[in-house]
Amino acid sequence: MSTETLARPHPSTPADAASDAGALRQRYAAVRALSRTLAAPLSAEDQTVQTMPDVSPTKWHLAHTTWFFETFVLHAFDSGYADYHPDFNYLFNSYYEAVGPRHPRVERGFLTRPPLEAVLAYRDHVDAAMLRLLDRDLPAEATGLVTLGLNHEQQHQELIVTDIKHVLSCNPLSPAYVPAPEGAHHPAGPLRFVGFAGGVLPIGHDGAGFAFDNEGPVHDSVVPDFGLASRPVTNREFADFIEDGGYARPLHWLSDGWATVQARGWNAPLYWRRGEDGHWWHFTVHGLRPLDPDAPVSHVSLYEAAAYAEWAGKRLPTEEEWEVAARRQPVAGHFLDGTAEEPRAAAPNTDSDVPVQLFGDVWEWTRSAYSPYPGFRPAVGAVGEYNGKFMCGQMVLRGGSCATPPGHVRPTYRNFFPPDARWQFSGLRLAEDS
Amino acid sequence: MSTETLARPHPSTPADAASDAGALRQRYAAVRALSRTLAAPLSAEDQTVQTMPDVSPTKWHLAHTTWFFETFVLHAFDSGYADYHPDFNYLFNSYYEAVGPRHPRVERGFLTRPPLEAVLAYRDHVDAAMLRLLDRDLPAEATGLVTLGLNHEQQHQELIVTDIKHVLSCNPLSPAYVPAPEGAHHPAGPLRFVGFAGGVLPIGHDGAGFAFDNEGPVHDSVVPDFGLASRPVTNREFADFIEDGGYARPLHWLSDGWATVQARGWNAPLYWRRGEDGHWWHFTVHGLRPLDPDAPVSHVSLYEAAAYAEWAGKRLPTEEEWEVAARRQPVAGHFLDGTAEEPRAAAPNTDSDVPVQLFGDVWEWTRSAYSPYPGFRPAVGAVGEYNGKFMCGQMVLRGGSCATPPGHVRPTYRNFFPPDARWQFSGLRLAEDS
Amino acid sequence: MSTETLARPHPSTPADAASDAGALRQRYAAVRALSRTLAAPLSAEDQTVQTMPDVSPTKWHLAHTTWFFETFVLHAFDSGYADYHPDFNYLFNSYYEAVGPRHPRVERGFLTRPPLEAVLAYRDHVDAAMLRLLDRDLPAEATGLVTLGLNHEQQHQELIVTDIKHVLSCNPLSPAYVPAPEGAHHPAGPLRFVGFAGGVLPIGHDGAGFAFDNEGPVHDSVVPDFGLASRPVTNREFADFIEDGGYARPLHWLSDGWATVQARGWNAPLYWRRGEDGHWWHFTVHGLRPLDPDAPVSHVSLYEAAAYAEWAGKRLPTEEEWEVAARRQPVAGHFLDGTAEEPRAAAPNTDSDVPVQLFGDVWEWTRSAYSPYPGFRPAVGAVGEYNGKFMCGQMVLRGGSCATPPGHVRPTYRNFFPPDARWQFSGLRLAEDS
Amino acid sequence: MSTETLARPHPSTPADAASDAGALRQRYAAVRALSRTLAAPLSAEDQTVQTMPDVSPTKWHLAHTTWFFETFVLHAFDSGYADYHPDFNYLFNSYYEAVGPRHPRVERGFLTRPPLEAVLAYRDHVDAAMLRLLDRDLPAEATGLVTLGLNHEQQHQELIVTDIKHVLSCNPLSPAYVPAPEGAHHPAGPLRFVGFAGGVLPIGHDGAGFAFDNEGPVHDSVVPDFGLASRPVTNREFADFIEDGGYARPLHWLSDGWATVQARGWNAPLYWRRGEDGHWWHFTVHGLRPLDPDAPVSHVSLYEAAAYAEWAGKRLPTEEEWEVAARRQPVAGHFLDGTAEEPRAAAPNTDSDVPVQLFGDVWEWTRSAYSPYPGFRPAVGAVGEYNGKFMCGQMVLRGGSCATPPGHVRPTYRNFFPPDARWQFSGLRLAEDS
Repeated sequence: MSTETLARPHPSTPADAASDAGALRQRYAAVRALSRTLAAPLSAEDQTVQTMPDVSPTKWHLAHTTWFFETFVLHAFDSGYADYHPDFNYLFNSYYEAVGPRHPRVERGFLTRPPLEAVLAYRDHVDAAMLRLLDRDLPAEATGLVTLGLNHEQQHQELIVTDIKHVLSCNPLSPAYVPAPEGAHHPAGPLRFVGFAGGVLPIGHDGAGFAFDNEGPVHDSVVPDFGLASRPVTNREFADFIEDGGYARPLHWLSDGWATVQARGWNAPLYWRRGEDGHWWHFTVHGLRPLDPDAPVSHVSLYEAAAYAEWAGKRLPTEEEWEVAARRQPVAGHFLDGTAEEPRAAAPNTDSDVPVQLFGDVWEWTRSAYSPYPGFRPAVGAVGEYNGKFMCGQMVLRGGSCATPPGHVRPTYRNFFPPDARWQFSGLRLAEDS
Repeated sequence: MSTETLARPHPSTPADAASDAGALRQRYAAVRALSRTLAAPLSAEDQTVQTMPDVSPTKWHLAHTTWFFETFVLHAFDSGYADYHPDFNYLFNSYYEAVGPRHPRVERGFLTRPPLEAVLAYRDHVDAAMLRLLDRDLPAEATGLVTLGLNHEQQHQELIVTDIKHVLSCNPLSPAYVPAPEGAHHPAGPLRFVGFAGGVLPIGHDGAGFAFDNEGPVHDSVVPDFGLASRPVTNREFADFIEDGGYARPLHWLSDGWATVQARGWNAPLYWRRGEDGHWWHFTVHGLRPLDPDAPVSHVSLYEAAAYAEWAGKRLPTEEEWEVAARRQPVAGHFLDGTAEEPRAAAPNTDSDVPVQLFGDVWEWTRSAYSPYPGFRPAVGAVGEYNGKFMCGQMVLRGGSCATPPGHVRPTYRNFFPPDARWQFSGLRLAEDS
Repeated sequence: MSTETLARPHPSTPADAASDAGALRQRYAAVRALSRTLAAPLSAEDQTVQTMPDVSPTKWHLAHTTWFFETFVLHAFDSGYADYHPDFNYLFNSYYEAVGPRHPRVERGFLTRPPLEAVLAYRDHVDAAMLRLLDRDLPAEATGLVTLGLNHEQQHQELIVTDIKHVLSCNPLSPAYVPAPEGAHHPAGPLRFVGFAGGVLPIGHDGAGFAFDNEGPVHDSVVPDFGLASRPVTNREFADFIEDGGYARPLHWLSDGWATVQARGWNAPLYWRRGEDGHWWHFTVHGLRPLDPDAPVSHVSLYEAAAYAEWAGKRLPTEEEWEVAARRQPVAGHFLDGTAEEPRAAAPNTDSDVPVQLFGDVWEWTRSAYSPYPGFRPAVGAVGEYNGKFMCGQMVLRGGSCATPPGHVRPTYRNFFPPDARWQFSGLRLAEDS
Repeated sequence: MSTETLARPHPSTPADAASDAGALRQRYAAVRALSRTLAAPLSAEDQTVQTMPDVSPTKWHLAHTTWFFETFVLHAFDSGYADYHPDFNYLFNSYYEAVGPRHPRVERGFLTRPPLEAVLAYRDHVDAAMLRLLDRDLPAEATGLVTLGLNHEQQHQELIVTDIKHVLSCNPLSPAYVPAPEGAHHPAGPLRFVGFAGGVLPIGHDGAGFAFDNEGPVHDSVVPDFGLASRPVTNREFADFIEDGGYARPLHWLSDGWATVQARGWNAPLYWRRGEDGHWWHFTVHGLRPLDPDAPVSHVSLYEAAAYAEWAGKRLPTEEEWEVAARRQPVAGHFLDGTAEEPRAAAPNTDSDVPVQLFGDVWEWTRSAYSPYPGFRPAVGAVGEYNGKFMCGQMVLRGGSCATPPGHVRPTYRNFFPPDARWQFSGLRLAEDS
């Protein structure tokens, strides 16, 4: 998603579990609480600055997700609702043109006012109104918008983590966002290729339960037989690519990728830093630490992912291949469990025929451009104003990362970023023709 | 193609008609002659300058296409060949990294030396050697490379036309490249949508006869039922979009498209100029002329094509849909017939069930990102060094234009350009879901 | 000064009043206290962000001025001093290359850490050490450096005001930095030209008392007879220039000035905003307010000042002319009196032969390029490392502004900025040939 | 001059020698002939391209200088004159806003039309009319404008040389503009400093004979005693600066200079190229040749000149100092003598008390910003429209170069360029305080 995806309930979404009023109220409270938990370790100063256009301040995320509920739910379904502040609609709109003018994205870091405490009070104000509203019997449109708002907030929770990681990475003190967890370190498993049988297969979301509209409609697609790596590429393997001159020669790069490498002076993934002794260090959410060679490589662009695959004599999977492989698996993995962590190697897996870590740890770049599925039509109205407007120039990633809240992704979930984006937990998994 | 495509004979290409020695020799002479015919109306000054990075000087095209035969054919198959000049390999290499360093693309317009007459002498030198070589009994690899070189030269013939059109458009005198032809003017036919039945259908080139490698391998694809417009969008129709505020509101645009419109101040297709009386004028290869409302709109970017389609309540076709529709038709249309012309309305067609002008007049943007077909693997060696390296960030166009030499395109032919490119004869045809 | 000037005691400076130990200690305490007073109305968030490269965060100013005393005084003269934090030398060095590497200027706004409270603790730590040191009998070099440090801090006090004004101006809420004062409003006096007799006259500082080295050596200069306006140009007068198409035609502009107007879309001084009713509003340190027509125009670049003067049929004075006129006057005016204010018209003056407001309210652009005086030589060592390195590409301003601490400027004081700088309280006064 | 200076006869200019009708006619023919001589070695292609914004094509220079006579002389004084072509006023105006719109400077290299032969015919057409006019008895205003036009053309003759040198330098073939002359090579003389007595001295042009208006009015200035180097800095000496890390350390650089060095990657004067064996080569008007260590260093910016002087423990002279030294000398030296040459060491000089090469070989940067002299007022009308508009942001150079036509410069002549300009024959001479 280009810092956030446009989302709306799939038109054919039937009532899902969350539409049960009590469950929805409970889920609202839980999701909203996580945002504040993520912000808790940060000072007001930390939550205010913007270190590049793609990054938004934590404070802005906290306010914008709140604005969503105020604008699309409370204004529509709570006639007694009084706005917290008349200027906040302008300040915290992101890109919904139909809702009116908005503050320029690149100047989000200039918003020293309102202060953090006002944004937190804004959250309290809206939460109180929302919880009152959720006690009432609501129409399906309203509960659909609440569900959408919660999925929207989960997307911003991932961005809170990745954006503050970038902010702190720009500080020469290399401060930690959160302390590092204790826990067993696993070596990366051996790299194997698991074969999958192709055919004319259904791809996309069938409408049962919540999904973003870009996941549908479900449609048949011809998927050839293919092989998929048993695990993502590791930091150790990526370091081998670097040592072999990966960033120094154009041979394996896409044309635009090589131009980007030269223009920006890239010589390693974002956040890798070469120590004076030649060893790699890694700026993490826990501060600067020695690079973990077993962890999946992260913070690489599509360009770097594709160059690595070419160098390795393999290729990236298509999004359809990835979905075929993932559909058979439980949506389980290393997700955002209350506090930010880094990708890590999975615990050993005895079944060599099943790829591990398809979900969680790192988003996996595919070689599929982000395009509309057959039959896709943009939704009507402000919420869905621009459902298709990002469907050019971006590439699909699949599977979620260690910064994705649990329960947010599905096998059909399509994330998307421009091919040069690196500040997400983005990695890769190799594929091959059968 | 990003100013030129990388090309090589499809691996499974059997001997085609041109491999008959006499025919190949004759075709060599004819193709090479056309390049000089295209340059003939231009002074040495005209042939030297470069008005933007995408544009190459005519002189450079004349030399680079010659360099191709010298480097890949004569050096390999004519042991007695003596280079015309030792510096020309550096000067006229385009992007073949394996062949050695090369002159920067953006500085091609600085090459006042060698003078035009030296480039023409270089052509004579190489042509003489090539014709001697083509009298001999050549291995299939050699005739394959000659065929490839001729297709390569045809691509540059199209660029000679589009690049000099840009060069002359930058001159306040609005000079004509060639005189306008006499001939009947046809009104545009009515716009109808022709229905096509989908299914699991073969897409791509099957290897019979010459094709570029990006056209294959042939593979099955699920194509839904669809409707395709009977003809391309016209200048009149596009002017309606402009009058309706098409360039003034973000509503119909892709996100990157709207950003481009604002950053570059676009308010009409390239080469459209509003007269003081409010009427549209058009800079053409015949100089500045009143806009022909019946002609297909040309020199629009993918962004403009997609915005128009959205405004019209339709969409762009996928490349597979286009190919399904085109495969049933003869490859005939308004191609480059010895001298440059502009797109124009087709003669009336009595059969309303057949789309017209799929071939020739304007390249038609599709909504398909330029991606590798299943099973595509880059070829080995300098000629095919980078067959896949442009397969990111570009969009597919189909069908050829009035600047494409006849015989160059096929139903499977994939042209590609970045979504903001406008200096080609690029237009659009609407599609709809069935 | 290019955000801050390099300064050191004039080589021939004798002991000045401040070298009396008690007085220096008292002055140290007072100057240091003012910085905290200026920061007091601002939240930690306000003090952290940077809205353009020229602007530094308040927090950075508070730390950098402290770093100066730590680095140049305590490290040199207090052997028992323990650094507050080892990283602060890197973080808060501004551009003293000899002192070691430093944090990039454009990334000062990324320093969410150290937090404001740590910077204030740093100030306390250094102040305690400094006050202990100032109780001792110090060599003249030490007291000279303390005096220099205090003048340096005064320069940063002016920047605290102008930088936070810019920061808050970028907030769509148009917040006030400080409340507006009560007080009588005076109309601007009539514009008269006061004649001054020229001759071969001494220019520059003679070494008695503190001065920055760029003010000397004193030297003779030929100053022709000239006339100087009785007061600065007002907002009302500058608005007339705008209404007359001042920003719409190249006629009166310097060549680089006109290019700047076009490239940046300037159509009024910085901080002027046209209301929907066509009236001018003014973003001030007290928030958005109606433009005061009687106040001196401020926040204009040299380009705008020169264009206005040309439009008015006059010219800007040279810095020598300004100094000749100012030397006869007491250094009194509307300076920074504990809290930030805006420029305003002076109280009526009965003596029509004396220009008013030469000191305070607005810095006055001269038409003199900032060049070394005859005999100027850069000083040796880190403090004076780059005394002359800004003497190219900048223009001299004279007289101080409403944001200049009282006691900081002199008739010989030379401020300097690039000709396109607008975020200082910079205005102009007309001159004419006699 | 910023590629060309604005010029007009000094208001108080009495009739000078050239106003004698026959002499003026003869001078007209001679000056006009030299432009064609300079263009003669160049092909139409060479004369068409523009390799950077500061460079104009030879063809444009040939046309623009002709436009000057057509616009300011023939239109005003020859009622029977018929324009050669109505479009040429737009095409070949440089920056005279009052004369109407004009072709953008950065697109001068797009003018493949009109062809060179048309420009030469334009010259013939105007020359014929001019020579007819010069046979008549003309008013002083007319002869003044002709004289101005000839001085204007001489400025463009220097630019023809420096601009084509840049054009050819961008060609990887390193072609020669003209063959190298035969002749004795002189070693550089020893570097001595010659003392000059200062005082209150007259500076500027007194109005006797032609001068540009920026040279006046003559006025008194206080010039201190000073020393001036006996000759310019040589290539050998400048190479020592490079070897000593001159471009690698900020120590000696102006602040803007060091930023420029880093942003553009400068590590030597323009046109210096390090050979594979470590020796310096020099792209010259005679092609690529070994660097002549005895020749004055040329193609350095003010930044490089000032850094060298600082490194050498000296300084650049002021323009007043230079003028005081030069006023005593004959205006003789190595000027443009019919064909382009490079700077070279002067023949040995027995008189050690006289600086050599003040005139010719290289323009000498001074440390004086280009500012108006006291009493300077811009002239009225199109010719003098912008006499003062370049008096900001540029620095004064003195003395002329090997590309300056003989008879063009005077001791009072003020050339000016931005401090980063390097494509002129610009060098430096050291000065010191006495």
